[in-house]
Amino acid sequence: MPDDLIAPRRNQFMNNEKAVAIGSRFWEETAAHGLAGIVASLGKDGYFTTDNGHRFVNLSCCSYLDLDSHPHIIQGAIRALEKYGVLDHCISRVRVQMPALLELEDSLSSLFRAKVVTAISASAASAGILPLIASGHLANGEKPVVVFDKNAHFSMNLYKAVCADETEVLTAPHNDMNFLEDVCKKHKNVAYICDGTYSMGGHAPAEELLALQEKYGLFLYFDDSHSLSIVGEKGEGYIRSSIQEVNDRTIIVATLNKAYGAAGAAIMFGPKRSDQALTLERFGGPLAWSQPMNTAAIGGALAAAEIHNSPELKERQEKLQRNIKLFDARIDTEQKGLQFPIRVVRASHENVINVGLDLYRQGFYVSPVFFPIVARDKAGLRVMLRAGMPESEVQRLCDTILRNKLF
Amino acid sequence: MPDDLIAPRRNQFMNNEKAVAIGSRFWEETAAHGLAGIVASLGKDGYFTTDNGHRFVNLSCCSYLDLDSHPHIIQGAIRALEKYGVLDHCISRVRVQMPALLELEDSLSSLFRAKVVTAISASAASAGILPLIASGHLANGEKPVVVFDKNAHFSMNLYKAVCADETEVLTAPHNDMNFLEDVCKKHKNVAYICDGTYSMGGHAPAEELLALQEKYGLFLYFDDSHSLSIVGEKGEGYIRSSIQEVNDRTIIVATLNKAYGAAGAAIMFGPKRSDQALTLERFGGPLAWSQPMNTAAIGGALAAAEIHNSPELKERQEKLQRNIKLFDARIDTEQKGLQFPIRVVRASHENVINVGLDLYRQGFYVSPVFFPIVARDKAGLRVMLRAGMPESEVQRLCDTILRNKLF
Repeated sequence: MPDDLIAPRRNQFMNNEKAVAIGSRFWEETAAHGLAGIVASLGKDGYFTTDNGHRFVNLSCCSYLDLDSHPHIIQGAIRALEKYGVLDHCISRVRVQMPALLELEDSLSSLFRAKVVTAISASAASAGILPLIASGHLANGEKPVVVFDKNAHFSMNLYKAVCADETEVLTAPHNDMNFLEDVCKKHKNVAYICDGTYSMGGHAPAEELLALQEKYGLFLYFDDSHSLSIVGEKGEGYIRSSIQEVNDRTIIVATLNKAYGAAGAAIMFGPKRSDQALTLERFGGPLAWSQPMNTAAIGGALAAAEIHNSPELKERQEKLQRNIKLFDARIDTEQKGLQFPIRVVRASHENVINVGLDLYRQGFYVSPVFFPIVARDKAGLRVMLRAGMPESEVQRLCDTILRNKLF
Repeated sequence: MPDDLIAPRRNQFMNNEKAVAIGSRFWEETAAHGLAGIVASLGKDGYFTTDNGHRFVNLSCCSYLDLDSHPHIIQGAIRALEKYGVLDHCISRVRVQMPALLELEDSLSSLFRAKVVTAISASAASAGILPLIASGHLANGEKPVVVFDKNAHFSMNLYKAVCADETEVLTAPHNDMNFLEDVCKKHKNVAYICDGTYSMGGHAPAEELLALQEKYGLFLYFDDSHSLSIVGEKGEGYIRSSIQEVNDRTIIVATLNKAYGAAGAAIMFGPKRSDQALTLERFGGPLAWSQPMNTAAIGGALAAAEIHNSPELKERQEKLQRNIKLFDARIDTEQKGLQFPIRVVRASHENVINVGLDLYRQGFYVSPVFFPIVARDKAGLRVMLRAGMPESEVQRLCDTILRNKLF
């Protein structure tokens, strides 16, 4: 029972009341216009068809390279199911495991030039790793002050309160290296938690972070899910390709179910950190319980690694960049010129849903974002470009945007 | 920056330093004897074979009905991959979804006579649901006092700190209904979080909890992963089969990758609670992000539902109970007579690993548990019985246990 006369402070880290109130207004309006809650079947040609025959391409999907429907990946998943004969033989991998997951992790380790351990999702990885960073068990044993970037994804922010049960937790203004350096000056051990690539565009400042690491020993944890596969010679992502070697004070997590085209997640450590890997397998929450990636996901991810090791990856990366350039040549956005495939086409709060509806009718599903999800004057259409779109379709998308009254 | 002169209390909910220190000693010793870190291939006959040819059956696996290797489930997974042509088309289901998941949820809803929503794992379900219970969004809008059973699984306890950021969190002694009733008397809104079936045996007192719900409006959240499929006419599990109807103040979560034989998890609500389902899909963390069960898991789970709807389920449930009875007739344990298939065969701290090793050499992998994981005088071998074991193998298992010096 409470043994404390001081009223505890609530909602230091999350506030569902606020989040649900804001989100509900947004989702109700989106759904009322038929732009949420869509059920449709995905055809071999990459187009969705609804029950009443409406066809559209999903430009709100993170499969930026269109690898998710690659026959080699599907065949890899099927082969693994046939070979192992189980989806999941339920036991903690600390005790007994089939060679399947080890084979995948070897393959990903060589692909990403790091020691790779897998998880069922990037958020399961964060659930396992962040509390162990906070308690010092993945660094040098001393509890660090843990600093979260203000814009870090909710899948990491969810664990702020858990980390705060172990150590001091701070929130830094977005990409504010001065704030972070101040914390480093004041505290011996600091860990920084952020997205490598933000879902609304922009990256963590990799070079400056590495400089702080060099100078102060800063521990770095990146979720770089949004850039895996689309950036880097082997698709190793923005952060991994920005650093020479993953050292023993850096962990990069990335999902395998966005551009990578399979399912699950990869956790990259320094190549010699089998001690960190073992700590995670034994004590990393969801990573320690009996819930590894299922056999189909393992087989699919293994086949995807083969594609990442082949010239086909570069072809798809280049095709994506061509589509982005085509789009940028015609539509002005704040993201213009970025390698990252998400663009927010600004429109007025009054018009944004109608433009979204017109695009949907023309066969392009994009996400309208508007108040209260963003400020009233920041409304727009979130367009996620894909490598598989024919150039003519990119042009038609631009035509459709331009024929609309945006403001 | 900290604006507080009062030193915050740490480790109110978790303590990694303690957990890792205790766990490391246990795992080091287990691994040193070759009883952890085993890599082996699973054959069609249900036996594992290591690289150097040692064959064993895994009696530390939660696939109590041996459904995990059922050809119908594997074929279901393969069929779904062929039909949908993607493992995961990455987008939040709130926006666009394929009918696959809805088909599975319809099937599970009818099987378990509740409104079912799926998740990639029971722990992802808890990550999504518990914070929304704490903030009142899955009950009547008022924040409850949240009471966790002391023995609740770590996958729920992980979210204590997150819940405590929203409301008052208490820990009740295991199954202590007096403690819980006292809290109900003092507070208008109370939610109770517990396992339906505990992994070391024993259940939540369903009847008494329902009585408290009736009297005080207590909100109940159960993780009943360990009894799904092995208990109930349709395998709906211990808690679901103990209550007439899932009402609007009860949520039951259960994994689909233990006895159920597939992968993923089911969340059961009251049949009319599509509002709760919608809240979860929009605001339930991992349930809201773009990470649903992958297509293979969906297909496997759908095929498993067909088996659960057929006479084969009862045959397997009965076969499991026969194996349990055979075991109980020869080996004395505290769990003797329970329907639940886990038995802890007590042995002295000095002998327990040697008995485990002898069993392993004879082809039975069981988990030795010993200090510091349990008290020094509580050491034993955790044996998880399975329906697929031939009776002769159960007898040979008992022979091997009995020929050993336990104390």
